[in-house]
Amino acid sequence: MTEQPLPHGTTSGTPTSSAAGTRLDPWLGAYADRTHGMRSSEIRALFAVASRPEVVSLAGGMPFLDGLPLEVLSDVASRVVAQRGLQALQYGSGQGDETLREQILDVMALEGITAHPDDIVVTTGSQQALDLVTRVFINPGDVVVAEAPSYVGALGVFRAYQADVVHVEIDAHGLVPEALETTLAGLAAAGRRVKFLYTVPNFHNPAGVSLSLERRPRILEIAQRYGVLVLEDNPYGLLGFDREPWPALRSYDEDGVIYLGSFSKTFAPGYRVGWAVAPHAVREKLVLASESAILCPSNASQIAISTYLSTCDWRGQIKAYREMYRERRDAMIAALGEHLPDATWNVPDGGFYTWVRLPDGLDARDMLPRAITARVAYVSGTAFYYDGSGGDHMRLSFCYPTPERIREGVRRLAGVVDGERELVELFGTAPSAPGDAVQAPSPDVF
Amino acid sequence: MTEQPLPHGTTSGTPTSSAAGTRLDPWLGAYADRTHGMRSSEIRALFAVASRPEVVSLAGGMPFLDGLPLEVLSDVASRVVAQRGLQALQYGSGQGDETLREQILDVMALEGITAHPDDIVVTTGSQQALDLVTRVFINPGDVVVAEAPSYVGALGVFRAYQADVVHVEIDAHGLVPEALETTLAGLAAAGRRVKFLYTVPNFHNPAGVSLSLERRPRILEIAQRYGVLVLEDNPYGLLGFDREPWPALRSYDEDGVIYLGSFSKTFAPGYRVGWAVAPHAVREKLVLASESAILCPSNASQIAISTYLSTCDWRGQIKAYREMYRERRDAMIAALGEHLPDATWNVPDGGFYTWVRLPDGLDARDMLPRAITARVAYVSGTAFYYDGSGGDHMRLSFCYPTPERIREGVRRLAGVVDGERELVELFGTAPSAPGDAVQAPSPDVF
Repeated sequence: MTEQPLPHGTTSGTPTSSAAGTRLDPWLGAYADRTHGMRSSEIRALFAVASRPEVVSLAGGMPFLDGLPLEVLSDVASRVVAQRGLQALQYGSGQGDETLREQILDVMALEGITAHPDDIVVTTGSQQALDLVTRVFINPGDVVVAEAPSYVGALGVFRAYQADVVHVEIDAHGLVPEALETTLAGLAAAGRRVKFLYTVPNFHNPAGVSLSLERRPRILEIAQRYGVLVLEDNPYGLLGFDREPWPALRSYDEDGVIYLGSFSKTFAPGYRVGWAVAPHAVREKLVLASESAILCPSNASQIAISTYLSTCDWRGQIKAYREMYRERRDAMIAALGEHLPDATWNVPDGGFYTWVRLPDGLDARDMLPRAITARVAYVSGTAFYYDGSGGDHMRLSFCYPTPERIREGVRRLAGVVDGERELVELFGTAPSAPGDAVQAPSPDVF
Repeated sequence: MTEQPLPHGTTSGTPTSSAAGTRLDPWLGAYADRTHGMRSSEIRALFAVASRPEVVSLAGGMPFLDGLPLEVLSDVASRVVAQRGLQALQYGSGQGDETLREQILDVMALEGITAHPDDIVVTTGSQQALDLVTRVFINPGDVVVAEAPSYVGALGVFRAYQADVVHVEIDAHGLVPEALETTLAGLAAAGRRVKFLYTVPNFHNPAGVSLSLERRPRILEIAQRYGVLVLEDNPYGLLGFDREPWPALRSYDEDGVIYLGSFSKTFAPGYRVGWAVAPHAVREKLVLASESAILCPSNASQIAISTYLSTCDWRGQIKAYREMYRERRDAMIAALGEHLPDATWNVPDGGFYTWVRLPDGLDARDMLPRAITARVAYVSGTAFYYDGSGGDHMRLSFCYPTPERIREGVRRLAGVVDGERELVELFGTAPSAPGDAVQAPSPDVF
């Protein structure tokens, strides 16, 4: 940057101007240290293009809402204001609406969780719960242990609080217990302070795998032995295609697990309602942190969700989602087999995502501009690693486009891969650009 | 605390347990440094009692919503889902809905602000905007300059980010320019890093005063000269009783002011919609910070507000609020004159609050339990100072109770003051308990 510093306060001789800024940003010198880690995604400009209708986006994590009964939900919204308006339009409790917290117990019972409404903190989407937990636990330099790869939006939060993320290997059965043990032992030997293990145990974002039933108690035993809290992030747990939900980690351990849930994937994200379940003392801290951050979650949103849960067939809606997403998963897997036989991928049995390993020599981040030009979008694997590795993978989501569009998108992607491979064969593999690793999560790529 | 430490991870011999906890809180040793500053308000238990219907609460900042046209708003809510459901129920932009941002320009035009929709960041209430600005600018130990007294919820955010707050004197015309200059000069001489000046220029919470027109450019000139950003928090600016709104500080200075607005007091808080207007580069940081914190604000809430603004008489609603709150202000002032002639107070010409100085020797915090027993609640002045001073004042809000209830509340308060004075005359003034100063803001006391 050769920009001349032009501090905002230049009219006086005061030597200790707080903000040594530039013409482009008069406050550049005034930001907190954490702010320098906030980077706009390099792919954001590309995604602005990708949101055009002619582009098939296999990038986003938006649920497909066209199947929702809008007439019924319109009636719900109307009743929320007509019958409970003075509450819905007013400030509410920092911890969240008590009736909704009771109903959340019913939802979590499907995964074997028993809790008390007092254990629950309602948040502005589970992203806010991630932010609050990190705020409450992380000093700069503290270690968070997380799967390799991990949800981009969680990595962004950890970065915002200047955590150090150490990734642990996963395989087809989820987090590998031996790898977790080795990592925690190494960190303990190095005197590093591990604050929590972040894990998405069901239908992992982006890897699509689930932590096996056999491994669940083992992972908890290891975490407990090393005094490490487990942060269980579970937006997709009810969206299995071929089986009932497995017991949540929280169902095995009340004191050692913070559980995060969300209505964004099982109902609708537009209300921004998620929640955390935490041990009693931690829950109190989360409520205080949330009151500082937003005073209270939206009563209008909470009562809309609460009314939906009490008057609509929410279990039937989840069943409908599961069938729709299974059909799309099938379309994705069939198209990959037909068009990208040189790549490898897993066959997820729930959730929104397939994790695809590219043929040798190809880099998903380098290839992305070409893909956008060919009117197909995905998220490069580099988004899901704290150090920007993962360029040999891409995440393909099958949640939003129709089966027909998924097939068309994968067909286009095959053309992109072929073109990129020719380039690599001609010129060799270019070293990937250095790590523009963790970016702020964007609504395009959660 | 004599609690025996019983770390969560006690089953192994691992010596470096990350969480040296207690039986009451197994994770006590794992919290971040900032978390130790998060304290539950000592008065929260009292307020749980205060929310009972037999208690007249002059404590809360809840707007009185009974005058809202619920039938009309019910229809608005219904149309939001029926006509725009696929957008309202979906994720949205991290910066906020573009149509709403355009409409916010119309609202701000009433205070002389000209801006572009791109300058606006929609937030989950303006409390989230406070949190984001503090997150972007404050390192632990940085100085925030703020009025003495200041909004309790802002002080809570500054505490959460480990800022050091330096208070500056205000008088009947708001922030005193000479005092600001002296403070900034002293801080500069001491080499302290001042990140911003936090001010509520209109119908101040809790002091009820407004920054005079004559002082507005002077305050900005001083801030600019010292290179200090101004954070203008303006939830009440449109709620003047006897005059049109004065020009916002932002209307004088685009690059040196971050402006915070809210629909919570001029319409309804239940949707949790506020906003920030910031210089371009700062706005980009705020969007990244917000995406990390919540991904995006609620589309359902934003579209409800947007539809309200485009189809309802929102200017007429503000006019109705102004008249209602003026009537309540009048009831409050008349009752104070009748029942508490030994106290002193200002006569606010807008907003929600009167700032009352108690007769000599009385302490508002010490007196509060007696007040609750007498079925009247207020907020002790100590909540509005970073160091817990201010016990000689209390904040009385006239926004929520009816004029009749206000009169009854002040009558009860007079009995409490009389009783307390007898006690002080008998036993002398007790030294006030040491500063449980800044607490997390609670929905009871904003």
